[in-house]
Amino acid sequence: MSRPAVEALLDVIRDWGADRLFTCPGSTEAAVLDALVVRKDVELVLTTHEGVAVSMADGLARATRRPSVAYLHANVGLTNGLSNLYAAQLAYSPVVVLNGIKASSIQARQGFTTAARMRDLVHQYVKSDWQSLTTEAIGEDVNRAFRTAVTEPAGPVWVGLAQDLLESTAEVPVPDVAPFRFDPRAAPSASAVRTAVDLLAAAGRPVLVAGSEVARAGALDRLVRLSEQLGAPVLHEDRRGFERPGFPTDHPHFRGQYEVGHPLVREADLLVFLGARLFHEFEPARVPPLPAGVPIVHSHTDPKYIGMTYGVDAALVGDQGLVIEALSAALPAAPPRAVPPALPTPPRRPSVPGAALRPADVVDVVTESLRGAVIVGDATTAGGILQQRAHQHSGDDYFVSSSGSLGWGMGAALGIAMGLPDRRVAAVLGDGVFQFGMPALWSAARSDLPVTYVVMNNQSYAAVGAALRRFGGEAVERQHYPGVDIAGPRIAEVSSAFGVPGRRVDTLSELRESLEASRRADHPTLVEVMTDPTEFGP
Amino acid sequence: MSRPAVEALLDVIRDWGADRLFTCPGSTEAAVLDALVVRKDVELVLTTHEGVAVSMADGLARATRRPSVAYLHANVGLTNGLSNLYAAQLAYSPVVVLNGIKASSIQARQGFTTAARMRDLVHQYVKSDWQSLTTEAIGEDVNRAFRTAVTEPAGPVWVGLAQDLLESTAEVPVPDVAPFRFDPRAAPSASAVRTAVDLLAAAGRPVLVAGSEVARAGALDRLVRLSEQLGAPVLHEDRRGFERPGFPTDHPHFRGQYEVGHPLVREADLLVFLGARLFHEFEPARVPPLPAGVPIVHSHTDPKYIGMTYGVDAALVGDQGLVIEALSAALPAAPPRAVPPALPTPPRRPSVPGAALRPADVVDVVTESLRGAVIVGDATTAGGILQQRAHQHSGDDYFVSSSGSLGWGMGAALGIAMGLPDRRVAAVLGDGVFQFGMPALWSAARSDLPVTYVVMNNQSYAAVGAALRRFGGEAVERQHYPGVDIAGPRIAEVSSAFGVPGRRVDTLSELRESLEASRRADHPTLVEVMTDPTEFGP
Repeated sequence: MSRPAVEALLDVIRDWGADRLFTCPGSTEAAVLDALVVRKDVELVLTTHEGVAVSMADGLARATRRPSVAYLHANVGLTNGLSNLYAAQLAYSPVVVLNGIKASSIQARQGFTTAARMRDLVHQYVKSDWQSLTTEAIGEDVNRAFRTAVTEPAGPVWVGLAQDLLESTAEVPVPDVAPFRFDPRAAPSASAVRTAVDLLAAAGRPVLVAGSEVARAGALDRLVRLSEQLGAPVLHEDRRGFERPGFPTDHPHFRGQYEVGHPLVREADLLVFLGARLFHEFEPARVPPLPAGVPIVHSHTDPKYIGMTYGVDAALVGDQGLVIEALSAALPAAPPRAVPPALPTPPRRPSVPGAALRPADVVDVVTESLRGAVIVGDATTAGGILQQRAHQHSGDDYFVSSSGSLGWGMGAALGIAMGLPDRRVAAVLGDGVFQFGMPALWSAARSDLPVTYVVMNNQSYAAVGAALRRFGGEAVERQHYPGVDIAGPRIAEVSSAFGVPGRRVDTLSELRESLEASRRADHPTLVEVMTDPTEFGP
Repeated sequence: MSRPAVEALLDVIRDWGADRLFTCPGSTEAAVLDALVVRKDVELVLTTHEGVAVSMADGLARATRRPSVAYLHANVGLTNGLSNLYAAQLAYSPVVVLNGIKASSIQARQGFTTAARMRDLVHQYVKSDWQSLTTEAIGEDVNRAFRTAVTEPAGPVWVGLAQDLLESTAEVPVPDVAPFRFDPRAAPSASAVRTAVDLLAAAGRPVLVAGSEVARAGALDRLVRLSEQLGAPVLHEDRRGFERPGFPTDHPHFRGQYEVGHPLVREADLLVFLGARLFHEFEPARVPPLPAGVPIVHSHTDPKYIGMTYGVDAALVGDQGLVIEALSAALPAAPPRAVPPALPTPPRRPSVPGAALRPADVVDVVTESLRGAVIVGDATTAGGILQQRAHQHSGDDYFVSSSGSLGWGMGAALGIAMGLPDRRVAAVLGDGVFQFGMPALWSAARSDLPVTYVVMNNQSYAAVGAALRRFGGEAVERQHYPGVDIAGPRIAEVSSAFGVPGRRVDTLSELRESLEASRRADHPTLVEVMTDPTEFGP
């Protein structure tokens, strides 16, 4: 079949099941916008910043496990979207980035909003980057982009589409996408499975570490079975690599988050990392992050992460669902070991009534009041507490980004809500984060998505304060922390001015009341909760 | 002299006369922040988004014609700042970008917020990109960065500073910067000047086109003299390349902006482009942008732009002040020609009282009420009218960016106000633009700078609407323009919530009143003026 290029482009998008196109458009996208006046099989989702277009597409892809499309404009639109594209990359999110580019002659002359090497800008954040060279190639190029995005390990791809090629009225081939939509998963080799199973069978105190890739593969149930078959406790992966829960926090085998100092890790005689990174380090470790002398089984969808820093005793490359199935099937029948009992939760420092709210108390109220909601975390210093306390039964109950790309959560929450239409979504944000994601409020206001934004406003870049504390220099000596105080904005009012009703609260009871009200709302809302600015970090 | 690396770094910054450091910091900047607890010779200017840090530094550099410093954090901070760095590049703005990078071991392991090739991300936007390899090299590397930034053609540079190198307590050499601060200007060769002067002397109807580089060189007075010496009319450069005025709009020889259809261009027998681009094209021209058969003299500081697309009859590479001086000195004594009279201004379509405000009327009120203020333009579709009507006596009276980087003006206005402390500054913005620059409101609220933000709110991406009109497809047929309607935000309220008092106005008299009040304020204010959403483009 042949069709004008822009129709071929939209046909390919539709045939890959991506029925939305997230964009903040410019003149280079006129032909696509014009086609969408008539076509209804692909929905134009307008955003007011490219960071929002990318994070919404990313959120939708994470929630649906299907490819999504962000359409960016020129070099400036691409660079505006890069930080959130980095987030998509770390989550193996198959976001197809289409990028409108000025007409060929304008590119050659370094005209308005061009870059001599567009592909260099995006290269590090995508699995492939290609600029279509002819009108005829557009359908094929975009089809290949989708195929590349979804092939495991999945991830973002980029296709540049010059305005003159896209606006051509020439009829171009429309590929039949069906033969490209194969099962892209890999299973580990039988010998690798045998090596891992031998280690598991020989271990007396194995600990499983559930990584984000388990959730992306939809394999929590299989990991539950493996854990029960073995009688092995399960930890979530280290916080810095965590993207989503790989094991139910309400399962009796769940024992918290991986840390080398965790009592189970200290006692373990085998560590099995499934779909986790070893590690996504924040700074040079003061103590080695793996216990000395303990054998390591490491499985990951992405072979580049196996043996990247630490050698392993068994390596299992492949889809985490298939890896876990293979381990379960190959394990010799044996009575399950007894899982060591959970340690008692350490007592909480009691709150002082009337004092500034502590982040931990706020997180407790949020996770209790919004129980059942999907939590999207984008709070730098409160993120650790949130991760410990958020209820995570399924792999879709909690989403964060390990990218450090502030503001990602505001758009991602909307994409996730689109992808999980039966769920309420709560995005828990810091006040610093909020300022990076504000244009998402426009998109929220235009939607009727059941999203609650909770902004924990400690009026600080608390992470910078924590870094100055660790640095231990003049700032600590004089108790003066430059670059930390960002007090001022009345965030709830900003939100209301965008059309997302906002309320600022100073007490836990007001917070509860606001969250309850948000559960009944049929549109996005925002609660700004004032927290203690002196409590740096978790 | 030897000092710890971070002190050497700050010494070099100070010795180059850059006494402010614009940043949105993270943990990699702890050592620098800590040093600034004690040191007062470099001021930390905190921002809440890297785009703001870069645009403030750019504005300051443009206004002072001196280098400035933006300190970004990790890969995500860099990518957040790239669009505004592109703006700085097009303006030849010597912004020294320092970039905190994770410790060396974290980079190698692809840890948190790292990029395998940081330099590739920024390469296209800077004159040099280098990551310091040793602690000892930091002083030298940053000194070389300043030297490179200010050497003509000037422009941004980038230096990556890994946390472990910067935090080393080793004493490192502090370079004496004096021998590096030479006069970096080039003058054109004598033979090139002779060729150009021969063409000028032979021409009967020469037209001078004053580019932005004339203003950057501070050479408006010299261009006035040349124009009077010749009796030649002067046009500003084409709108798409325009960054700042190269000729006083109140001089009797000023005749508007370059267009190939301009009556003087049609009549000219010589065109002399001084510090302008030929051209910074927006889209393929429907008619050639140069008149056939007319000799061209083209001068630019940046040799890459001479002969990039169109051949020339004389080329003058160098600083525009030196170029113009050389032409003036070499011109044979001759009575000046008579400058053709200005054409009468075409009559304005009268406004209908009570109807939606027309952008042209709003611009008239803004430019009249704020006469004497520096205008910073960042309004996509109203930009053309603003440029025509803003009073531009000096090269510092009007600043825009030719980058298409929306939101640049909100931070740039603050940097320009810092650089021109005796001037009031008004930033004229579109409502789409506003959403890209919002974090600048935080910086504005923290300052006592005399900045007035005027947001022309037509509730539209009018440029997208204009593109759909030019495309002439189904959107026009059905009068349905997708991707255009961005109505909703109450911009004045957003501003007030940030601590920048905002007011929404619907009439020209309210607008006048608000602008008058803003002139008396000792802090930034914002006026949101509702304009006609149906009037796409100028």
